[in-house]
Amino acid sequence: MDDTETGQQHRATHMRTEILEQPAALRATIDALLPRAAEVAAIAPRARQVLFFARGTSDNAAVYGTYLIQTRTGRLASLGSPSVATTYRSKIDLAGVMAVGLSQSGRTQEIVETLEWARDCGASAVVITNGAGSPLAELADVTLVTEAGIERAVPATKTFTCQLAALAVLALGLGADLDAGLLKQLPAVIEDLLSSATTPGYGIAQVVDELADVDGLMVSARGLVYSAALELALKIKEACYLHAMGISYADLQHGPIAVVDAKTPAIVMAADSGPTRDAAVDLARRVTGSGARAYAIGGGAELGAVSSRALAGPALPEWLAPIGLIVPGQLLTEELSRRLGIDPDRPRGLSKITQTE
Amino acid sequence: MDDTETGQQHRATHMRTEILEQPAALRATIDALLPRAAEVAAIAPRARQVLFFARGTSDNAAVYGTYLIQTRTGRLASLGSPSVATTYRSKIDLAGVMAVGLSQSGRTQEIVETLEWARDCGASAVVITNGAGSPLAELADVTLVTEAGIERAVPATKTFTCQLAALAVLALGLGADLDAGLLKQLPAVIEDLLSSATTPGYGIAQVVDELADVDGLMVSARGLVYSAALELALKIKEACYLHAMGISYADLQHGPIAVVDAKTPAIVMAADSGPTRDAAVDLARRVTGSGARAYAIGGGAELGAVSSRALAGPALPEWLAPIGLIVPGQLLTEELSRRLGIDPDRPRGLSKITQTE
Repeated sequence: MDDTETGQQHRATHMRTEILEQPAALRATIDALLPRAAEVAAIAPRARQVLFFARGTSDNAAVYGTYLIQTRTGRLASLGSPSVATTYRSKIDLAGVMAVGLSQSGRTQEIVETLEWARDCGASAVVITNGAGSPLAELADVTLVTEAGIERAVPATKTFTCQLAALAVLALGLGADLDAGLLKQLPAVIEDLLSSATTPGYGIAQVVDELADVDGLMVSARGLVYSAALELALKIKEACYLHAMGISYADLQHGPIAVVDAKTPAIVMAADSGPTRDAAVDLARRVTGSGARAYAIGGGAELGAVSSRALAGPALPEWLAPIGLIVPGQLLTEELSRRLGIDPDRPRGLSKITQTE
Repeated sequence: MDDTETGQQHRATHMRTEILEQPAALRATIDALLPRAAEVAAIAPRARQVLFFARGTSDNAAVYGTYLIQTRTGRLASLGSPSVATTYRSKIDLAGVMAVGLSQSGRTQEIVETLEWARDCGASAVVITNGAGSPLAELADVTLVTEAGIERAVPATKTFTCQLAALAVLALGLGADLDAGLLKQLPAVIEDLLSSATTPGYGIAQVVDELADVDGLMVSARGLVYSAALELALKIKEACYLHAMGISYADLQHGPIAVVDAKTPAIVMAADSGPTRDAAVDLARRVTGSGARAYAIGGGAELGAVSSRALAGPALPEWLAPIGLIVPGQLLTEELSRRLGIDPDRPRGLSKITQTE
C-alpha cells in the first residue's frame, strides 16, 4: 500500500509494515484463540476477580482488560503492582484471584517472577503473550498465545492490538455478554479502516504537520477507550520523543488541563457510540474554547464537529473500538517520527525486551 | 519564614504558607486520627482487600495506600475506576472489599456516587477527607477527617501530606506491623526538613534555575515513594504548566526513557533506605550517562553521588518517607511557578473542587 499523503515516498519502515499487517495478525489471533475461550471458562468459577500484571504497552492493553471485565462480567478487575512481588517480596492473600500476566516477548523477567509469586499467593494464572514457548508461556493454567508474528520495530503495534483481541477472548471466557461474531468481523473492519486512513483525504498528514512543532500533547479518553489513549501517548513518547500524556477526561480536568495551550494540543479519542462520547465532546469543546487545538480520533460527527481536526474512527461498538482507534494513532506516530528525523523502528535508548529490577 | 535564596523577596503565596503549615497540620491530623485506628480495626476482619477511589492529588495519595497496605498487611490493595460506577453503571461483586474514597473537599460528586455504588455492590466504606460534614464524610462506615485546615491555593499541599498520614493510620487499623511512635514524630521531622530546605545552602534555587528553561521533565520513583513522584509531577503540571510525567523506574525504562535528553531532565526520588534505593541509583546513573540531568530528592549519599544535583530527603524510614520527600518538591514547584511568571495559587483553568462526569 503506497502512501503519497505527504508528497514523499515512504521508506517501508518495519513499524509501518507491521501496522499494515494488523488485519492478518488479528485474523490469525482470533482464529486461534476464540475456540479456547472454553479453557478460560473452565477455570472461571474459581476467579472472583482479575488482577493484571504488565509493563509498558502490555500495561496499556491490561487497562482495556480491566474495563471490559468490570463492565461485562460483574467481576472486579484491576492492575497489580509487580514491585510488591519482586522488590518487597510481600506475601498477600490472592485466593480467588485470576492473575493475568501480559508480555509480548514472554521474557520480561519481572512479569515472570510476579506471576510465579501470584501463584504462590493462591491465584490462578493466565498468560497472554506473543512468545510461544517463552518462560511466561510455560507457567500459566491457561496461556493465550497471540499470532502477531515477529515484530521488528521497537514500538509495538500489531502485538498490542492482538493483545486486546486476546483480552476480548478472556472476557468471553469469563462469561461476558458480548457477540463473538463481532470479534470475528474485526479484522475486516480494521482492513477497511487502514484502506481509508492511508488515503490523502483522511487527514493524517495535516495533523502531522500541525504536531511537528508542538511542545507536547495530551491524549485523552475514558473507560474502555482509555487504553488506546495511554497507548497512543506511549507510542508518541517512544517514537517522537514528545511529551505526550495519556490521561482520562476526568483526570485531565483535575489539574493537568492547565498544561493545554496554544503549543500543547489535546488528542481526544472516543468510540462512535457509548456512554463516554458526550464527555469527549465536552472536553474537546473546553479545549478549543480555551484557544488550544483538539484533534478527534473517532467519536463520530458529534466529536468531529467540536474539534480542530477529526480522524474518523472504526465502525465498531465501544467494546471493540479501542482496537480500531489506536490504528490511526499508530499511522500518525510513524509519520510524525519520520517527519522529526527519527527512525521509528529504533528509538534511542530502547530495546525490544526491557528488563527491570 | 523568609527565603532569600533567589535574591528576591517572596510574596507570601498561599501555596508557600500552606507548605510551611504542614508540621502543624500533620500534628493535628495524627493526634486526631491515631486513636481512631481501632475503628478501622473493628471493620478490618470483613475486609479481604482494599479498593481506593479518588482523582488527582487524592489519587496520588491512594497510590501510597496501595503499597503500604500490600507490603505491610498481607492484603491486596488497588485503585478502582470510578467510571465503572458512574459512567457504565455496572454492578460488580465487591463482597469482602473495603472501598476507600479520598477527596480533600469531600464534595467531588463522582467520588460520592462511586462510594455509594461500592456499598450497593457489597463493600464496606471508609472515607478520608479534609471536609468535615461534607457529603462524602456522611456516607462511610468510618470517616477519617484530616485536620489540615483551610487550603486556599489550588495546588494541594498540606491536604496531600495529611491524606498520607491518614492512610498510615488506615494501615495501622488494618494490622500493619508499623511503629506508630514514628508517625507521632513525623511532624517534628517535617519541621526540621522545612528549616533546612528553606535555607540557601539546600539547593532549591539552583534546581529552579536549571528547570526554568526545560521542555518538560520526568519524575520517577518506585514502590512506596512512587506516590510522591506522581504528586510532584502533578504539582509541576498544575502550577508551572510544564510537561512533567510521574513514572515508576520500571515503566520509565519501558519506552518513555526515549524522551529524556539534554532538554528533558529527570527528578529521581527515593527514601534514604529500603529496597528501591539501588534501582534509583541505577536510573540516575543511566540518565546522567545519556547526557541528561538527574536531580535527586532523597536517596541518601548514594543517590546524590550519581545525580547532577541533590536535595536531601527527610530522616524517615521508607514507609513514611513519601510524606517528607514531597516537601522539597512542593517548595521547588512554588518557586519555579513564580519564576515562570505564574501565580501558583491560581493556575489557569483550575478550580479547587473539580466535578467530572
